[in-house]
Amino acid sequence: MDEVNQKTGPLSERARVRREAHRADYDRTMLDAIVDAAYVCHVAFTDARGTHCIPTACWRQGDYLYLHGSNGSQMLKAAASGVQVCVTVTHLDGLVLARSTFNHSMNYRTAVIYGVCETVTGEHKAESLDALVEHIARGRSHEARRGNPKELAATTVLRLPLTEFACKIRAGGPNDDEDDLDLPVWAGVLPFELAQRPAIADTPQIDEPVYVAKWAKDGN
Amino acid sequence: MDEVNQKTGPLSERARVRREAHRADYDRTMLDAIVDAAYVCHVAFTDARGTHCIPTACWRQGDYLYLHGSNGSQMLKAAASGVQVCVTVTHLDGLVLARSTFNHSMNYRTAVIYGVCETVTGEHKAESLDALVEHIARGRSHEARRGNPKELAATTVLRLPLTEFACKIRAGGPNDDEDDLDLPVWAGVLPFELAQRPAIADTPQIDEPVYVAKWAKDGN
Repeated sequence: MDEVNQKTGPLSERARVRREAHRADYDRTMLDAIVDAAYVCHVAFTDARGTHCIPTACWRQGDYLYLHGSNGSQMLKAAASGVQVCVTVTHLDGLVLARSTFNHSMNYRTAVIYGVCETVTGEHKAESLDALVEHIARGRSHEARRGNPKELAATTVLRLPLTEFACKIRAGGPNDDEDDLDLPVWAGVLPFELAQRPAIADTPQIDEPVYVAKWAKDGN
Repeated sequence: MDEVNQKTGPLSERARVRREAHRADYDRTMLDAIVDAAYVCHVAFTDARGTHCIPTACWRQGDYLYLHGSNGSQMLKAAASGVQVCVTVTHLDGLVLARSTFNHSMNYRTAVIYGVCETVTGEHKAESLDALVEHIARGRSHEARRGNPKELAATTVLRLPLTEFACKIRAGGPNDDEDDLDLPVWAGVLPFELAQRPAIADTPQIDEPVYVAKWAKDGN
């Protein structure tokens, strides 16, 4: 692995962005922002059956991305076995409509992380699951019933160090060829946002916690 | 590959959903619905540098999922070389808050497709790029300047047959343990939707096409 300053370059040749390299970012600040805005990642790994790409929940604590699930998960079993994984988080921010089809694009923020997972055990396992609940809904780890020993034992928690990664970001309007700028074609951005929609209560008799009361209320 | 009827079972052992198998769906109708609602997929592949997970645009035509990009893309070069890929599309529909942390979940629709890509050439290459533009904005392939020979030559188009796949869907409220149902904990779903936000025009002097005028206008 080429150890390059993360402010200026990729941490490995594998993680170097080749296409549209000006959109690359190797800074932890950007990585953390992309990961912290996500609920789901895609985990790529290879086992005897081939290469797989499996979506799963994710969250960050410090210098690690965390994954969890049932002990029976083929993905977690493979990732826990020490094989190299690649975990990717992507936010789609918009469709970019240029005057030429060739210059059409998308606005996005993506983080691609390479490495080998560690299995989380002991007290930190329960703490990390609390952190997942807090990531989903701040304060809820003090409300919902925490996992009992049987549930904890049935759950695998893994973490991937945030050391070998690349972020790639596209934002803004279309980049058309100068020759195309006078074409009578509408150009611009059709933005997306992962919007919150009104909560659906299973417990109408119970007061909404703050994170529920605020859901889909802040202009979303 | 185990050839199992897609109405009843997976098309390969590799594509069989093991965890929460009651959420699996191996029907092409479901696959098409999940893929057609997507703009982006994640492509997992393995080369000499390891296993990768790369986001990219996708669209469907008939019995194939299409990918495209610059000839220089490492992902496309690998996928065009005949290596097995796994392409996954995921829609996140909500956070499911159960009374116990163990039963927290997410609502989602995901499609995992295994196979080997074919390179698209000849007339179908330009047609397939038109189909991508139509997927993004219906009618736009007749408005934007189409790719010239140089642009087409710089672009790789691949397609993956929709034959070996699994869909997995979770919808609805929390599934709590019976012993937890009386806990004084709010439970329910916090829904998400990939919402359209107002278009940002680069060409205010040009009338909006229908697909722009309707963007973020239909209750989104």
